[in-house]
Amino acid sequence: MLKNDLLLRALRGEETERVPVWMMRQAGRYLPDYLKLKAKYDFFTRVQTPELATEITLQPVDQVGVDAAIIFSDILVIPQAMGVEVLMEEGKGPSLPNVIKSQADVDTLNTENAEEHLKYVMDALSLTKKALNGRVPLIGFAGAPWTILCYMVEGKGSKTWDKAKQFAYTQPLVAHNLLQKITDITISYLKAQVRAGADTVQVFDSWAGALSPADFKNFAQPYLFRIADALKNDAPVILFPKGSWYALPDISNSAASGVGIDWCITPQMARELTNNRITIQGNFDPSKLLAPIPEIKKAVKEMIDAFGTQRYVANLGHGIMPNVPVDHAKAFVDAVKEYGGKK
Amino acid sequence: MLKNDLLLRALRGEETERVPVWMMRQAGRYLPDYLKLKAKYDFFTRVQTPELATEITLQPVDQVGVDAAIIFSDILVIPQAMGVEVLMEEGKGPSLPNVIKSQADVDTLNTENAEEHLKYVMDALSLTKKALNGRVPLIGFAGAPWTILCYMVEGKGSKTWDKAKQFAYTQPLVAHNLLQKITDITISYLKAQVRAGADTVQVFDSWAGALSPADFKNFAQPYLFRIADALKNDAPVILFPKGSWYALPDISNSAASGVGIDWCITPQMARELTNNRITIQGNFDPSKLLAPIPEIKKAVKEMIDAFGTQRYVANLGHGIMPNVPVDHAKAFVDAVKEYGGKK
Repeated sequence: MLKNDLLLRALRGEETERVPVWMMRQAGRYLPDYLKLKAKYDFFTRVQTPELATEITLQPVDQVGVDAAIIFSDILVIPQAMGVEVLMEEGKGPSLPNVIKSQADVDTLNTENAEEHLKYVMDALSLTKKALNGRVPLIGFAGAPWTILCYMVEGKGSKTWDKAKQFAYTQPLVAHNLLQKITDITISYLKAQVRAGADTVQVFDSWAGALSPADFKNFAQPYLFRIADALKNDAPVILFPKGSWYALPDISNSAASGVGIDWCITPQMARELTNNRITIQGNFDPSKLLAPIPEIKKAVKEMIDAFGTQRYVANLGHGIMPNVPVDHAKAFVDAVKEYGGKK
Repeated sequence: MLKNDLLLRALRGEETERVPVWMMRQAGRYLPDYLKLKAKYDFFTRVQTPELATEITLQPVDQVGVDAAIIFSDILVIPQAMGVEVLMEEGKGPSLPNVIKSQADVDTLNTENAEEHLKYVMDALSLTKKALNGRVPLIGFAGAPWTILCYMVEGKGSKTWDKAKQFAYTQPLVAHNLLQKITDITISYLKAQVRAGADTVQVFDSWAGALSPADFKNFAQPYLFRIADALKNDAPVILFPKGSWYALPDISNSAASGVGIDWCITPQMARELTNNRITIQGNFDPSKLLAPIPEIKKAVKEMIDAFGTQRYVANLGHGIMPNVPVDHAKAFVDAVKEYGGKK
């Protein structure tokens, strides 16, 4: 039914005639048509209005030519569904006025009825799926439990996440209770996304890299793996614990179909640590999209030379930056497509 | 002449009866006696007045019991010596109003007479050396060329350093000219520090981790190695390219005596990548100093168990945070001392 199922085949470890490509945060930020909608509607209106979310999701498919659509939404819809207030001030990032400090705070959190609380996401997925009409696969997503804990405890973005880490180190049992609650609702949420039309789901552990390998194994990895296990019969799961290169051997033995990596590891090392047991997604330096187009094309070629064309999904190592010119984003996508097939 | 030369022996690869310990940014920030001076004198007065810098440098030796003093100064004295204005607003971090954009900008930069321009640093080192009276070694330092370029191009701190990276990717020859100029003046500066009393020097590449392995090898590593080569007959050199774990094999074959690592790598992996050819310094998660004292002590023990007591310098994986209670910092130092000798 899909006219282009490159991404799904790459995730299943099947042969692909060329490398599939998409870009994290491809929907939004740098696209002029997105900025027009941003000027008219505030953040949560854009996220919660299925027609707007669909329009935004489709823009990079139409305008940049990526091989997958990723639903326009936000990882902080999960704290919202759990009953936590989330504010979004343009240009300032998110803030959560009531932070989690204790088991009593954790006890108040809802883990039920994700599908109803986040019905607008499912509606956006169904609408997008229909509008895509099989052109490319549709990706659903959620934040990883550790990353969601970071925001719920810290109350806003941070360079070091030391409040979140202090909470975990000082009250580990409370932290684990919170992580499990986030995991529970995230599993129902992702399953609902698949029912609504997501062909694959990605779990973003954006702040995994703040943790040492031992703390990642304690506070992040088990919850990522529970999600991958729970979803494995629903859709291929991509785990993206940014910065946690040391976890690649364990992840390659998990139920996940793909793993995202950032640009701070060589393709060779990533292949070695995963022993070709899992599809790798990444790992173009997002800042390199600011380089001249010939440099971008050269760097893409070198990247695919190093990863090979199989069990590989070309992507950035983190979200695309708002100041990237659209023709540079397009040059990245085109360079992957021009590379061609099996070598 | 030194009563405690543990750090120097560890750096030379000689046997030590116990692990030496110090903490990056140990002078300042979290110490109440420092905060009193901070309330009275602005940042550059504290840095440029040898008596104040000496007093601040000695505080952690007297009050926390570290095995080395590191001179109180700032990495941005090098741009200042090159003729670039640097402003420091308390609580806001540094800013450089006139950023480097072109070869013409690079051409205006001074690389001569570091010792005269930064005489106050040499005076502070001599005064501190005298005041220490051989109690512990004195560490000098400088920022690495890549990290200094980051500030000179970006004009202020950044999460992603994308302006600096765009500059390097778009005008690589200009970037290399700038990096070489910074390297030249840094080498004279560090040699002058050794003449003034520094027993060892550390080069902080705080933003190395923003680069991919290939870009680190292009824009950061060669300059770090030129500095290590130039200083190797003057004093042991410690390189600290934060986040660049992938460079450990190369660094272990360089002229450096020690390498700093952050907490995002296991001790085992760091030993494996360096093949025990170089002394390792690190790698306690600075946020873990906010954990309860028994947790800190347990984590220190596990860290030394994993690194072993030889060719090892206990330290944090990044600077100590301002919100760390002094008794927690002291617990970290005490735990290293209590661990004892060769096992």
